[in-house]
Amino acid sequence: MSTIEYHPIGVIHTPFPEPAGMPIQPSRGRGVRGTVELDAEYAEALADLDGFSHLILLYHLHRSQGWRPRVVPFLDTVPRGLFATRSPRRPNPIGLSVVRLVGIAGTVLTIEDLDIVDGTPLLDIKPYVGEFDQRDELRLGWLEEARRRQAESDDRFSG
Amino acid sequence: MSTIEYHPIGVIHTPFPEPAGMPIQPSRGRGVRGTVELDAEYAEALADLDGFSHLILLYHLHRSQGWRPRVVPFLDTVPRGLFATRSPRRPNPIGLSVVRLVGIAGTVLTIEDLDIVDGTPLLDIKPYVGEFDQRDELRLGWLEEARRRQAESDDRFSG
Repeated sequence: MSTIEYHPIGVIHTPFPEPAGMPIQPSRGRGVRGTVELDAEYAEALADLDGFSHLILLYHLHRSQGWRPRVVPFLDTVPRGLFATRSPRRPNPIGLSVVRLVGIAGTVLTIEDLDIVDGTPLLDIKPYVGEFDQRDELRLGWLEEARRRQAESDDRFSG
Repeated sequence: MSTIEYHPIGVIHTPFPEPAGMPIQPSRGRGVRGTVELDAEYAEALADLDGFSHLILLYHLHRSQGWRPRVVPFLDTVPRGLFATRSPRRPNPIGLSVVRLVGIAGTVLTIEDLDIVDGTPLLDIKPYVGEFDQRDELRLGWLEEARRRQAESDDRFSG
């Protein structure tokens, strides 16, 4: 199998027209509201979804400018292996965000906690389930060091 | 944009040759070990990944038999909207699993906690990051009711 073909099932609308102005950390995107406009043919598949508080959205990172083996992530100053980052410059540019479901009206979902650029093509919606998607006792590699450095730096300027 | 083309970047190997024998709940897959064999051209992109305890794998559900708007999920007896389930029968059959990273040797990753069928084409590897991927105070819709029913039923037979 050399090529896999997918088709957008809808569009994600957010207040961010360009990648440049987006919250890079989802914590800064908390409370930012947007919508998912699902194509009409998928309306029936939304049944029962309104009982879930959080969703996983998978989407095509349509603004990604091609893949790179290493990228300098936000919060860091040295290049890191692409798969150790959430950069859009992936071999298959599939984005993943956990969002809060505010409500559903017809085929329009209102969602919160966004770090997605406006007009992004939607690929899938999954319910967020603790047993599947939550893990404890995490190790975060380079990200732990980078956060420690940032905290120290913030401390320096606040004193 | 009507068609999006992706390409497998490797293969996932697990002890489950058929979907039928797989753990349907990841909790039953805890400790089950397998490997990701990444294609050689992506070797450099694995740098820094070994610092992370958990990964998100995205993969093509190559055994999915076409999409359906409603499915009867495991643990339930009535059809539910497809997007309110984790069924493979999705418009774009992209699977998502959070797995534990045991180790990396060259382009082979040893992983644990598997609910994936052997030979599944890999699409992406992302680091699992609490700030992005963990959420609390979840509501789980039909799944809460189904679990309650199952617990009551288990109780009946254990007494």
